[in-house]
Amino acid sequence: MKKFTMTIDLGGTKILSALVDDENNIIMREKVATNIENGAEGIVKDIIGTIENLIKNADVGMQDIKGICLGVPGIINPFEGIIYNAPNLQLKNYNIKSEIQKVIDLPLFLENDVNLGALGIKRVEFNNKVNNMLVIFIGTGIGAALILKGSLYRGSSFFAGEIGHIVLNIQKERSKKNNSTFENFASRTAVVSRIIEAIQDGEPSVLKEYVVKGRKIKSRAIAEAVEAGDKLVKEHLYDSSRVIGNMLGNLQTLLNFDTIVLGGGVIEAAGDFMMPIIKKSFKKSYFDVTGEQTKIVSTKIGDDAPLFGGWEVINEGLSLNIK
Amino acid sequence: MKKFTMTIDLGGTKILSALVDDENNIIMREKVATNIENGAEGIVKDIIGTIENLIKNADVGMQDIKGICLGVPGIINPFEGIIYNAPNLQLKNYNIKSEIQKVIDLPLFLENDVNLGALGIKRVEFNNKVNNMLVIFIGTGIGAALILKGSLYRGSSFFAGEIGHIVLNIQKERSKKNNSTFENFASRTAVVSRIIEAIQDGEPSVLKEYVVKGRKIKSRAIAEAVEAGDKLVKEHLYDSSRVIGNMLGNLQTLLNFDTIVLGGGVIEAAGDFMMPIIKKSFKKSYFDVTGEQTKIVSTKIGDDAPLFGGWEVINEGLSLNIK
Repeated sequence: MKKFTMTIDLGGTKILSALVDDENNIIMREKVATNIENGAEGIVKDIIGTIENLIKNADVGMQDIKGICLGVPGIINPFEGIIYNAPNLQLKNYNIKSEIQKVIDLPLFLENDVNLGALGIKRVEFNNKVNNMLVIFIGTGIGAALILKGSLYRGSSFFAGEIGHIVLNIQKERSKKNNSTFENFASRTAVVSRIIEAIQDGEPSVLKEYVVKGRKIKSRAIAEAVEAGDKLVKEHLYDSSRVIGNMLGNLQTLLNFDTIVLGGGVIEAAGDFMMPIIKKSFKKSYFDVTGEQTKIVSTKIGDDAPLFGGWEVINEGLSLNIK
Repeated sequence: MKKFTMTIDLGGTKILSALVDDENNIIMREKVATNIENGAEGIVKDIIGTIENLIKNADVGMQDIKGICLGVPGIINPFEGIIYNAPNLQLKNYNIKSEIQKVIDLPLFLENDVNLGALGIKRVEFNNKVNNMLVIFIGTGIGAALILKGSLYRGSSFFAGEIGHIVLNIQKERSKKNNSTFENFASRTAVVSRIIEAIQDGEPSVLKEYVVKGRKIKSRAIAEAVEAGDKLVKEHLYDSSRVIGNMLGNLQTLLNFDTIVLGGGVIEAAGDFMMPIIKKSFKKSYFDVTGEQTKIVSTKIGDDAPLFGGWEVINEGLSLNIK
């Protein structure tokens, strides 16, 4: 009997991969840098290398693997294996599945990386006991995935979950001027750019040195600033948390989730500070009692989430008799 | 073999009911006024009267009826048969199913009236060939229902679709001051109240007489004003249509529907004027290509939609072995 699923999370900077058994144990894992310089061919070659390494290092055979799931940062067709658009990988309308399967004779599925993360969280952190769940990742950008009626909701053309691009105030049409989207307000990129602006305007902050030296402010720096009690950083995280809570309240009003999970670099770094504010705004913002029974939590499994999510995609695909 | 489903759409002012066969033919229909003066008992009595009338007038037997579906304007549990809250009927936490089944020995299901309308539209107007559909009714209030993955999405506590209560600008929390919700801006009630205000401020309109005489401005009057080319009414409908289009664009960004259907009194009255504006704003407002393939149309079946929707609920319930 085949025992393992293999998931390869293809990021813009690194490829994380793992062999996982049916009890959510990671048997073997690997992490290598992504090379996009050599184009699609190079990426396929690296993926095949990863597959072969995992099998060799875990000392298992190809015949022990149920299937492979590829996590892709972009829009994909999970079953046909086409990457429609993955800007970070510079891939467009590329059937990566058929390329890999020229060399690797195993069932292979694609999934959007955010969806894959949500499936992993559902499996590992909730033992699949959630029906309607929103998973939202706050990082350099904002991504989300929807579990509805117990399984992934992909939308009619695999676009569902583009929460970061929701317009904050719909009294005006989206335009170049009115580009005040959720991501443009609450992502790390947006918060950091407001912090930098304030520092340049003369406001005090422990992050001043970063600005003076032109160093990038990443999640770790934000975490340290919060820990140091930095007023400026806390103010801006407070604003962002409020809007996140309000957004979740609006979505709750529409979709009546049982569970909302937050993750991503910003939440990992500053969740202790942000989560209570997010919860408070959420509570004020959902309509009537629509969110009264909703669990709202942060995820604890970080980058490993997609590695577990692959199990779900592979078994769904196999049950549909797709290879 | 049982041939018919019976649906009773319990409105705040009227009870519409019909016997429908498997080919969507209405065999017999009835319309009576709702009496809420006699409380729950009176409503149950009227429902039982309706059931008996339909069967008698259609000259069929109880044994020919697969089941009954009750459309309720409020929050219900479709299978347990409990009305949690239906303000227009003044019913709360009432197990109407068990009361009716004391007298009528047939499988009985409840469904929210908006959900029922959406199921009817899906069945009759799309021959069930929609996967992910938003149905939105613009009338005195605004209601919506979601068909996701081919079937009704009810949410975790049967609250899904409260689109009217979404806050328009989420940069602020919902509060008594910030109660600028979708319904408070784009419902007939809201549009009419802005029109009245403008007329009272001296702006010319064919509806001036209504305001002077204190007559209610209903959808028909709005339709006539649009037809007469009334500038004021058209301006306010334009504003409302824009915001409706923007809202649909935002929801499309999240849920990537294949189909969006608009209905309700305002659309029935002024759809010819409003739909092109709604479509234009929608097109500007969804993210990237997420709405490129989405059909956006108005429904043609009006009040009959719920009567057809009952077929779906009854057959779903029976297939789940619920009675």
